[in-house]
Amino acid sequence: MSDRPQTPMLDCVSLPADLKDLSDRELRQVADELRAETISAVSETGGHLGAGLGVVELTVALHAVFETPRDKLIWDVSHQSYPHKILTGRRDRIRTLRQENGLSGFTKRSESAYDPFGAAHSSTSISAALGFAVARDLGADGVGDTIAVIGDGAMSAGMAYEAMNNAGHLKTRLFVILNDNEMSIAPPVGAMSSYLSRLYAGAPFQELKAAARGAVSLLPEPFQMGAKRAKDVLKGLAVGGSLFEELGFSYVGPIDGHDMEQLLPVLRTVRARATGPMLIHVITKKGKGFAPAERAMDKGHATAKFDVVTGEQKKAPSNAPSYTKVFAKSLIREAEADDKVVAVTAAMPDGTGLNLFAERFPRRCFDVGIAEQHAVTFSAGLAAAGMKPFCALYSTFLQRGYDQVVHDVAIQRLPVRFAIDRAGLVGADGATHAGAFDTAFLSNLPGMVVMAAADEAELVHMVATAHALDDRPSAFRYPRGEGVGVEMPERGQPLEIGRGRMIREGKRIAILSFGTRLAEVEKAAESLGQRGITPTIADARFAKPLDRDLILRLAAEHEALITIEEGAVGGFGSQVAQLLAEAGVFDHGLKFRMMVLPDIFIDQASPAAMYAVAGLNAQQIEARVLEVLGITDIASRRA
Amino acid sequence: MSDRPQTPMLDCVSLPADLKDLSDRELRQVADELRAETISAVSETGGHLGAGLGVVELTVALHAVFETPRDKLIWDVSHQSYPHKILTGRRDRIRTLRQENGLSGFTKRSESAYDPFGAAHSSTSISAALGFAVARDLGADGVGDTIAVIGDGAMSAGMAYEAMNNAGHLKTRLFVILNDNEMSIAPPVGAMSSYLSRLYAGAPFQELKAAARGAVSLLPEPFQMGAKRAKDVLKGLAVGGSLFEELGFSYVGPIDGHDMEQLLPVLRTVRARATGPMLIHVITKKGKGFAPAERAMDKGHATAKFDVVTGEQKKAPSNAPSYTKVFAKSLIREAEADDKVVAVTAAMPDGTGLNLFAERFPRRCFDVGIAEQHAVTFSAGLAAAGMKPFCALYSTFLQRGYDQVVHDVAIQRLPVRFAIDRAGLVGADGATHAGAFDTAFLSNLPGMVVMAAADEAELVHMVATAHALDDRPSAFRYPRGEGVGVEMPERGQPLEIGRGRMIREGKRIAILSFGTRLAEVEKAAESLGQRGITPTIADARFAKPLDRDLILRLAAEHEALITIEEGAVGGFGSQVAQLLAEAGVFDHGLKFRMMVLPDIFIDQASPAAMYAVAGLNAQQIEARVLEVLGITDIASRRA
Repeated sequence: MSDRPQTPMLDCVSLPADLKDLSDRELRQVADELRAETISAVSETGGHLGAGLGVVELTVALHAVFETPRDKLIWDVSHQSYPHKILTGRRDRIRTLRQENGLSGFTKRSESAYDPFGAAHSSTSISAALGFAVARDLGADGVGDTIAVIGDGAMSAGMAYEAMNNAGHLKTRLFVILNDNEMSIAPPVGAMSSYLSRLYAGAPFQELKAAARGAVSLLPEPFQMGAKRAKDVLKGLAVGGSLFEELGFSYVGPIDGHDMEQLLPVLRTVRARATGPMLIHVITKKGKGFAPAERAMDKGHATAKFDVVTGEQKKAPSNAPSYTKVFAKSLIREAEADDKVVAVTAAMPDGTGLNLFAERFPRRCFDVGIAEQHAVTFSAGLAAAGMKPFCALYSTFLQRGYDQVVHDVAIQRLPVRFAIDRAGLVGADGATHAGAFDTAFLSNLPGMVVMAAADEAELVHMVATAHALDDRPSAFRYPRGEGVGVEMPERGQPLEIGRGRMIREGKRIAILSFGTRLAEVEKAAESLGQRGITPTIADARFAKPLDRDLILRLAAEHEALITIEEGAVGGFGSQVAQLLAEAGVFDHGLKFRMMVLPDIFIDQASPAAMYAVAGLNAQQIEARVLEVLGITDIASRRA
Repeated sequence: MSDRPQTPMLDCVSLPADLKDLSDRELRQVADELRAETISAVSETGGHLGAGLGVVELTVALHAVFETPRDKLIWDVSHQSYPHKILTGRRDRIRTLRQENGLSGFTKRSESAYDPFGAAHSSTSISAALGFAVARDLGADGVGDTIAVIGDGAMSAGMAYEAMNNAGHLKTRLFVILNDNEMSIAPPVGAMSSYLSRLYAGAPFQELKAAARGAVSLLPEPFQMGAKRAKDVLKGLAVGGSLFEELGFSYVGPIDGHDMEQLLPVLRTVRARATGPMLIHVITKKGKGFAPAERAMDKGHATAKFDVVTGEQKKAPSNAPSYTKVFAKSLIREAEADDKVVAVTAAMPDGTGLNLFAERFPRRCFDVGIAEQHAVTFSAGLAAAGMKPFCALYSTFLQRGYDQVVHDVAIQRLPVRFAIDRAGLVGADGATHAGAFDTAFLSNLPGMVVMAAADEAELVHMVATAHALDDRPSAFRYPRGEGVGVEMPERGQPLEIGRGRMIREGKRIAILSFGTRLAEVEKAAESLGQRGITPTIADARFAKPLDRDLILRLAAEHEALITIEEGAVGGFGSQVAQLLAEAGVFDHGLKFRMMVLPDIFIDQASPAAMYAVAGLNAQQIEARVLEVLGITDIASRRA
């Protein structure tokens, strides 16, 4: 506690209403203290630091000028909401961020009235804000102004454009703060981003350009200059913002988002004057005010716990390589031998490992921005032209391109390869980032091949399998985090399509695993072995096409069959059930169970805690086996 | 045959290469004859007429100037591809359009080398074209230029923006023809649309404005004027097109898309000169050249077979009301009693019946454009603000907003009501418009309520149920076409959540139906009754939450249980299987079967023919019952 920052002014602010009594100079001090408190808190919890540091002044200014929670402040993605949480009555819990039963790393309706709309996926804020604005116009209770705060990276998503297109048409009063830091997670890549750069490059205020380029902390911050800038942009309302104006928005900016002398008067004025949709273009610096974050390539996007002085992260060393890295290296190997291999990512070059691929093959790697719909159909176009595209997305983000998978890839039977990272539970990012549904929504698409890697060596082979499969689409899923430490093959070997593998032959009960729960199944089997129960274990490898022979044999030779997967109902187990039903296996009795993710959204926690909630750890598998076999006394003794 | 149009010039064109030998004047004649042939063909088949008539000249000009199929011509949505099909070797089959085993109503890779990328859902063309362009740059075989032809309505979709944003960044040579007819299916509604209007309203060429507003046929078409306009726009390349230029595109236009004297020189010049992405803005008139279409509100969007002279449509009169209309009327009834009810459609006011709702409640109905992602989250925002939004989408288009359903609606448990029209097989629109996956991708979302109407009276009650359900999201699905003719309730009554209904008590076998296959089940039961077999029949009503008591009772009291639904595996049947497995029902044997849509994409045909392919008609249900009960001799005699 002793090395926590001194925050005398912030200590007087328990809710945003307390800001109303403060002078502009005092608000500036609140901002400084809020920055220190944010750094201190995240140093203890880890989390998304850079985004929050970039909007400290904006957070204070918005809460000072608007009347939250009646006015609805909606943070896009909401990685940047930690300072907002501190200001809105959650300071006492801020050091529980992203922990089990702690504060969410995102805004969350159930957490606070100051979070009118939860977020975590990009580019939803303008749509949601427009919903509130229209509801207000129709007389909804307790809804005042609506303000969406959205980053320049998030503006590459079509959804943001759809919302602006609709807002510009409806012409209702609505504020969109464009938080332009030239950086979402990766540096942004689209034409919109270049356009935004030109907007402030063309302005006569070179200090703004310098500010955005990273030199802001070197500049003096004279009161006059800030206030003058505010006056100028308001007088020249709309200068340079043509693209937004063409879409029906009034445009104000750009202004320096770290200068309260610009922020406060501009926000006060637009609040007093706006009648229709208005975009306020604010230049900020991700990681602002914490040197290690400012220096980092990703501007301190996400961090483990760290030392406040040095910025050094406290992270346990790992032994096995991450699945992400194994995927990237395997893909590079395939691409070295085949110049038709290309890779597509939607703004996640680091998260998907494709940054490594891009280093090796810069011309064959495409970061399309936060634009999953386009990523999928762009990949389909590449495949139609004879290339071999690997479209690498997180499971949860592939949901954004689902129609394109169905319509542009599957119906046309184009050989796009989907590399699905973060499949299954993901830990601290919680329910919004869980990859729970991909097996279900892909496995019922005609012609699709759906695989899950049981370990990192299997992933190497699945990359090779997808590469070799050139007559139809395929997908392979793998989880967040590190592999199990198995021996790695020199080179991937294409697997036989629709063939599983037997792990060990046992009796009475068979466990058929799809994906990385296999390790837990083996642990459960070991423990069961000590009780004289030796389950058969098989790795399905494919949810589609199923290994019909293997599955029917397991059913025929055992009194019980359990499927297990890290996914919701409707996926692998359901495919197996359909096969067994059609084959008449149930007619004469089979103790059949499908272990799937439970029918709840599982909140953030450690992976181990999440698996326990899901009922998918070794002990729970063991208990399920005992229960199915009717050995209840032992099961209850161990439970 | 005798009243088919005379087409001497068109008769000489069997493939686009034949256009290369023709003069500009002869190309004009080809266009005129192509228009007549298109009208004649669609009068016999029905289909999408207006879109094709609007691009007759453009089709001829593109094929004359570019070198298809090496150059890749990609029609967005491709309702407008009929003239293209006639020109590209498919004239002899054009009168099989949308019939079983006939030409598709859309472009289709398997149909022709001149269809490099199939379409049917909006706004995919730029993404696909960019894929081809990039593949060409990387040395793909047989890929020349790429041209996407996209309507102004399709430009409201975020996906088109994502693709332009990426293309503007990559800077590769790529042609986008913006076919601006101020009309996709419904009149367009977004800010982009207003922007496009301003582009040509501001131009000094008032005849263009007149052309677009519908007066084009009244104008003289002097050779000089057209050629001069072409020269002018090329000289002033980029005048007025700032929004597209900001996104990295060169802009040419607007030009009159019915004037070959403008089209040909402009296309020839840009083909010779372009280095990066280029947008050519072409003003056309949907339905051009066929008076009944030009006069129609929807400009002849889709039509039944019709009389070529009068335009009168030959459509069989129907007895029962369409599900679409029943939904609309029911929603209006609910909205009359509750001013919190609002409705959202994504560019389908007519298709969803919300045009009726909009007439009654213009302020409470929102057409957001072709923008399903936004539609869903906008609805979520409305719900978060206390409104009661009904988001009405076709099943196939709901796929576009899937992530938003998961992330913005389900995780937040917001009471958005999804009215899912066109659920199941849809007839002539074929596989791309089938609603096959919604039950699966919705039923595994925690907290979601998923219903299917067995008939039009049930639909009335489900609208009331969704309205009353204010603590969580819900969805109800219903098919294309007319109801079964049941008596209609005066007013919808909210159903008990998660309760099915018994239709008839029988023995030995139970059939549990979800949705409108119930009528076929009853027909099958009648026929079975003549053989002394009396199946129990139940209507599940809910795929989520399931009626646990009903299902377990059916399982306990019968030797066999069959589920039936008009959806892919992973949906209702899979939910039932999960329940039965967990309850241990399979342990001691149950003849359990799940009748679902088969694992193929079913091509266009009559609904009856499609159900036969799917194996879901009365006769096939009967056969399945007999087979499950082991009465194979009778089954085989009837098969």
